[in-house]
Amino acid sequence: MNKLERLQSRIGTIADCGIITDDVNRRYFTGMKSSAGILLVFPEESVFVIDFRYIEKAKKTVRDCRVVLESSSPMEQIKEILSTHNAKSAAVDSETCTVSQLNMYREKLGVDISDSNEFAKAIREIRLVKTQDEINKIISAQRIAEAGFEYMLDFIKVGKTEKEVRLALDFYMLSHGAEALSFDTIALSGKNTSLPHGVPSDKVIENGDFVLMDFGAVVDGYHSDMTRTVCVGRPTEEMERVYNIVLRAQEAALSQLKAGMSGYDFDKIARDIISAEGYGDNFGHSLGHGVGVEIHENPVASPTRKNIIPENSVITVEPGIYIEDKFGVRIEDFAVVKADGCEDLTLADKKLIIL
Amino acid sequence: MNKLERLQSRIGTIADCGIITDDVNRRYFTGMKSSAGILLVFPEESVFVIDFRYIEKAKKTVRDCRVVLESSSPMEQIKEILSTHNAKSAAVDSETCTVSQLNMYREKLGVDISDSNEFAKAIREIRLVKTQDEINKIISAQRIAEAGFEYMLDFIKVGKTEKEVRLALDFYMLSHGAEALSFDTIALSGKNTSLPHGVPSDKVIENGDFVLMDFGAVVDGYHSDMTRTVCVGRPTEEMERVYNIVLRAQEAALSQLKAGMSGYDFDKIARDIISAEGYGDNFGHSLGHGVGVEIHENPVASPTRKNIIPENSVITVEPGIYIEDKFGVRIEDFAVVKADGCEDLTLADKKLIIL
Repeated sequence: MNKLERLQSRIGTIADCGIITDDVNRRYFTGMKSSAGILLVFPEESVFVIDFRYIEKAKKTVRDCRVVLESSSPMEQIKEILSTHNAKSAAVDSETCTVSQLNMYREKLGVDISDSNEFAKAIREIRLVKTQDEINKIISAQRIAEAGFEYMLDFIKVGKTEKEVRLALDFYMLSHGAEALSFDTIALSGKNTSLPHGVPSDKVIENGDFVLMDFGAVVDGYHSDMTRTVCVGRPTEEMERVYNIVLRAQEAALSQLKAGMSGYDFDKIARDIISAEGYGDNFGHSLGHGVGVEIHENPVASPTRKNIIPENSVITVEPGIYIEDKFGVRIEDFAVVKADGCEDLTLADKKLIIL
Repeated sequence: MNKLERLQSRIGTIADCGIITDDVNRRYFTGMKSSAGILLVFPEESVFVIDFRYIEKAKKTVRDCRVVLESSSPMEQIKEILSTHNAKSAAVDSETCTVSQLNMYREKLGVDISDSNEFAKAIREIRLVKTQDEINKIISAQRIAEAGFEYMLDFIKVGKTEKEVRLALDFYMLSHGAEALSFDTIALSGKNTSLPHGVPSDKVIENGDFVLMDFGAVVDGYHSDMTRTVCVGRPTEEMERVYNIVLRAQEAALSQLKAGMSGYDFDKIARDIISAEGYGDNFGHSLGHGVGVEIHENPVASPTRKNIIPENSVITVEPGIYIEDKFGVRIEDFAVVKADGCEDLTLADKKLIIL
């Protein structure tokens, strides 16, 4: 079954029709990028209603559902399609549908509109498990990010600012095949590396600074995500020691990751190593998150989540130690989860690089 | 009254409390950028609940409301704040609140949660009219975009691709003070300029091509928006004629724009000139839209909208003529609307530039 057929096979227990209008899920199920369009999911077929700007492209490229030109009265048109399918109820994707959209559907569509979270749950469960085609796109995105990292090893020097590092990395990825950036690139140096969510500033890189970069590229809607921390000039003994603890925690987690493990247990592998070294309080975020058509999706690996990590999900492995007013280290790969292990999608070197 | 006081003065007729959680409106009312936080608007005060990552910054910079550190049980905490204010009902911003958020509030907050569009309407009406401080930020953003345009006049040459033009312009704006781009920059050439929503491709600029750029910079959350169409080498007579019709339509609309006019009448000024020249069917979009903390906001100027354009709103003026398989021209400024006219915020030259 393709992705839409999987959703069609589940819609019947939720409502007579599922309505998808957000850019990410519409693209996920139709395979086509657009800034408009409504996807109607029935048990027996799906219908993609799309305006004149995109109709040619949709007819050429969208294979898994019927493509229909949007009329000048889209709500009337959808009402008719619902009626043709004898649908008495419809469900919205509660995680993306706004309250005002829901109000409009209730006013205009003449069927019972469910506001339960069931349809959203079905969509996210399907997205959780990746096909080989999806994994190939994620790998393409990751190769661009890694080329960007290689480029940065030449670019980063004493005197460059964090903002300059970010812009150079972004520009590299965007001019080497990335359709977009996975998220606002993080590029921090020196003391600023101790901020897990820091924003690149005009701070100049100094001799002896760690430089931390967290970044990713998007290809065909699929994201990559990686973090590397490098040192400009000689690190102190403490910097080197902390770096190697994070590296050991990250490699241990990767080596034990396999399908069926809980997010809690997976997180615990890295956290226990960091805690045993006395840095437990300095690892203030989760170990990992899923990556796909969004940069943060399921599965989650965190001390508070008992969810199971399934086969063929993609998850980041990103332990960190952040010491206030001194420095921080984070090392992040991401991997496809397999029955008996995982395939690390990140090829970039992880030993401490001294520039 | 400041912006939050204006909203506080309106909340009483809608509900006992208004809940704002989306990034754009939260930043608009608090003045602080963050990726989290909940703003509670009561008639007598507003309360900004924000987590430890942002609390220091919030306490230093947020002046118009009370700042409270988010607890480990945010829903319990909000319930208590509602109870302290004796609130029996709350309203969400229906245009940004998702259905699953609404479900959660209904389950956890123990007050009646309104799903009407009234609170969203109040927020947008306040945002419609800009303060001088907001206009100053929009002007700062526009100056960066204009410097980018000047830079492009040197950069654009036969042999450059549309993607190269886009990246160079983006890189210029981001390295000259823009915190972000207003939207995905449009850079098109030759026949591609006939697509009002075209996406930059690998097409190479050829001699005799129009090059159309639609772009903007963001400063302090405020957007700018401009379009210029330039010619690389000699234009044909038809290209020159069409360019000058668009320019005449644009200048006529700008010269007649003033507060109190309807969006319909404003659009009609430009549309009538273009139609009289026989190109009415080639102007397939609206004349303009509001610009502020979002790139598309109110007021709208279009053949189907009767809304009034108020004093101190900011609106784009962007007529275009698109001739399939030949070329397209769009010229866009934006202006602050005044009682007896308008102030054009765009300083860049509009005469046909031949490179």
